[in-house]
Amino acid sequence: MGKNLLIVHGGGPTAVINASLYGAVEEAKKHPEVEHIYAAKNGTGGLLKGEIIDLTNEPEEKLALLLQTPGSAIGTSRDALEAPEYEKMAQILKEKEISCVLMNGGNGTMDTCGKLYKACQAAGGDVRVMGIPKTMDNDIAITDHSPGYGSAALYMAQSTAELCADVKGLAIHVVVLEASGRNAGWITAASALAADQGGDGPDLIYLPERPFDEDQFVADVEELLKKKKGIVVVASEGLHDKDGKPIVEPIFKVGRATYFGDVGTHLAGVVIKRLGYKARGEKPGLLGRCSIYMQSKVDRDEAQLAGEIACREVLKGTTGKMVAFKRISTEPYKVEPFLVDIDEVMMYERTMPDEFINEKGNGVTEAFKEWARPLLGEEIRKMVSFN
Amino acid sequence: MGKNLLIVHGGGPTAVINASLYGAVEEAKKHPEVEHIYAAKNGTGGLLKGEIIDLTNEPEEKLALLLQTPGSAIGTSRDALEAPEYEKMAQILKEKEISCVLMNGGNGTMDTCGKLYKACQAAGGDVRVMGIPKTMDNDIAITDHSPGYGSAALYMAQSTAELCADVKGLAIHVVVLEASGRNAGWITAASALAADQGGDGPDLIYLPERPFDEDQFVADVEELLKKKKGIVVVASEGLHDKDGKPIVEPIFKVGRATYFGDVGTHLAGVVIKRLGYKARGEKPGLLGRCSIYMQSKVDRDEAQLAGEIACREVLKGTTGKMVAFKRISTEPYKVEPFLVDIDEVMMYERTMPDEFINEKGNGVTEAFKEWARPLLGEEIRKMVSFN
Repeated sequence: MGKNLLIVHGGGPTAVINASLYGAVEEAKKHPEVEHIYAAKNGTGGLLKGEIIDLTNEPEEKLALLLQTPGSAIGTSRDALEAPEYEKMAQILKEKEISCVLMNGGNGTMDTCGKLYKACQAAGGDVRVMGIPKTMDNDIAITDHSPGYGSAALYMAQSTAELCADVKGLAIHVVVLEASGRNAGWITAASALAADQGGDGPDLIYLPERPFDEDQFVADVEELLKKKKGIVVVASEGLHDKDGKPIVEPIFKVGRATYFGDVGTHLAGVVIKRLGYKARGEKPGLLGRCSIYMQSKVDRDEAQLAGEIACREVLKGTTGKMVAFKRISTEPYKVEPFLVDIDEVMMYERTMPDEFINEKGNGVTEAFKEWARPLLGEEIRKMVSFN
Repeated sequence: MGKNLLIVHGGGPTAVINASLYGAVEEAKKHPEVEHIYAAKNGTGGLLKGEIIDLTNEPEEKLALLLQTPGSAIGTSRDALEAPEYEKMAQILKEKEISCVLMNGGNGTMDTCGKLYKACQAAGGDVRVMGIPKTMDNDIAITDHSPGYGSAALYMAQSTAELCADVKGLAIHVVVLEASGRNAGWITAASALAADQGGDGPDLIYLPERPFDEDQFVADVEELLKKKKGIVVVASEGLHDKDGKPIVEPIFKVGRATYFGDVGTHLAGVVIKRLGYKARGEKPGLLGRCSIYMQSKVDRDEAQLAGEIACREVLKGTTGKMVAFKRISTEPYKVEPFLVDIDEVMMYERTMPDEFINEKGNGVTEAFKEWARPLLGEEIRKMVSFN
C-alpha cells in the first residue's frame, strides 16, 4: 500500500527551514512507496482548516529554490493548541490517509509533535511522527546545536564585524546592536566572532544569562571612552535585572502578547543621559533570521540532512523521535546525526553554559568561540585598517 | 620635482568608500612622479592635528583588502570647520609639501573641498583639490548617482525581499522596516526592488519627500489587513507631517545634535494602538551602509573608478572638480564619468523627483525601479513560495 507523507512547519522561520523541507521532499521522491508528498499550508493553523499543499509533482527547479528561500515556503503558525484541536488534526490525517508526519520546529513544536502522535494513537490510526529541529535561538536540548542557528550566528558575527569597522572609521558614538534571543544568549554571543576579521570585535557583550546592572554598564562604557571614541556594544533583547525584571518597559499588550521597548535604543539612551555622549541603537530583528547572503553553508547542509534523515526514518517506521547532532570533533569540524526521544526535548529551553560566559559577564570565553566558529560555514571576511 | 598626494575622507562611510581609496592609491602608484601617497588619519579632524598615514609602501595584498572593508580604513570625521581651521590645514599641506589633495565625501565634504582650495591659494601654495563623490543617501546633485548608493540599495532591496518572505510564511504581524535617509528617499525607495525575487515586495513605502499622514497610514494598513495577515511597510527615518514636523519626537539633545525616536518602532506602536493588531519595527540602521555581503559589484567598480579618475586628474593639474557619472543607457546599463565644478554640488541636497514617486505617495513608479535596478549589481535572489 502506498504512503502519504505530510510536512508541517511550526514557529518562527529560519534561513534554512526550507532547506530541511527540500531535504525531506527529495528523500521522499526516492521512495517509490510514497504516493503523495503533502505540506500543511501555514502550519498546524492551516492543517486544522484542512489546507494542504501537494508538492508531489512540483518541478525540481522550483523545489531547488527552497535552498535559497528564507521564511517558510509552505507557511508556518504559532498558535497554542488545545486537546480538541489535536483530535481534529488526527481526524484530518485519517481522512487524507496520511501515515507519516514530519514536524519541523523548536521545543514548542516538539511538544505539539508528541501530542499529535498520542491523539493519532487514540484515534486508532497507524500514524508516525518525526521531529526536525529548527530554531535560530539554538535553545533545543541535547543536540549540539540546531539548524537555523549557524546562519543566525553568521549574520550576527559578520554584521558586528562590519559595524565595528564603521564605528572605528567614524569614531563619534556608542552603537548598541540588539541581538535576538530573549532567554538564551547564543545569538548575542556569536557577535564575539566578529574579531575574526583581523581587527577589533565588539567592546562589550551582554547576555540574558546574566543579570544586567545598569551602573556596571555605564562604568564599563565610561572606562572604554577613556581609550577610544567609538564603541560597539551587543545586547540581548531579553536583558533583565537581578530580580528578573526586563530592563525595558512593556509598552503594549495585545491579547496574551506583551511588547517591550527596544533594548538597543534604551541602552543608547542611557549612555546619552548618563554620560552625555552620542549613542544610537540598531535592531536588525527579523532580518537576522532570514538573510540568504549570510546563510551558513554548514547550517544549510545540516538542515537539509536533518530533513532527509527524518523522512527516511519515518518511512522506515520510526516514530516519536527528533533528529539531533552530536559533535565528534571541532577541528576538523565533524558532527554525527542521531535520534533522540521527543519527550526529552519538548518544552525545555537550553541556555548558554557557564563555561561559555566570561567572569565579568560582559563577554564570552575562547571555549565558546571555538565551539561556535565552525557553525558559520565560512570565515568572517578579512578587513584592513590603517588608522 | 616629485609630488605628494593626500587622500581625505569626510562624513559617514559607505560600503565602498575604501574601494575609491584603493582606486586612487593604485592609480597613484602608476605615476613615477608621486613620491608619497598620504592619507589623513580620521579625516580633516586628524589632518588638523597633523596626523597623516603614509600608504606609499603598504603591501598590495593589504591594500586589496580595501575592496572588502566597510567603514573608512583611514578614518573619517564629521566636524564643522571654521575659517582658521582651513588656514591651518593649508599650512600643514605646505609643511608636508602636499600639492595634490583628494577629498572623498558628500555634498558637505565638497563644500570643505572648495574652501580648502581657496585657503591654499590664499596661503600662496600650488595645491590642487579634486572631489570623489560618496554617499549612501544618493543626495549629491548632477551625478546620475553616487558611489555608496548602489550597495545601500542592494542591502535595502534584498533585506526587504527576505523580510517579505519571512512575513508571508508566518503571517501574524505588520513589520515596519526603517530605512536610512532623513531627507531623501532613495534608499527607502530601493525596497521596491524586493519584488524582483519573484513574489511580493513591500506592501507600503513611505518616503520623506511626501508629508506623512498617520490617518492615511492606518487606513492603508487596515485595507491590506482585509486581504492578508502579514504586512511589510518600509518607512524613511525622516518622515514628517504636512507642517514639516518629524513624526517621532526628539528624545535627546547632545550639543547640536538632536536624537529622534525610531520611526519603525513608532509606526508599529501606531498599528498596535489604533488597530489592535500585532506589529514590530526593525531598524538595521548603520548595518545598511557597511554590508560587504551585500556590497554591489557595480557600485564597488564605480567607486574604484571614481578614485582612479580623481587621482589621474589631480596629478594632471585639474582642480576644483568632482568626478560624476552620466547615464548613457539603462538597458544595457552604461555610464560615463565626467567632471563637474565643485561649486555646483556643494551643500545641495538632491531628493527624489516626482516621476519616481507614485500618485498616492505610498510607493514608487516603474520608472524609478528601471533606473535603480542596474545599480544593485546583481539580481535579487529568486525565491519560491507554495502557500
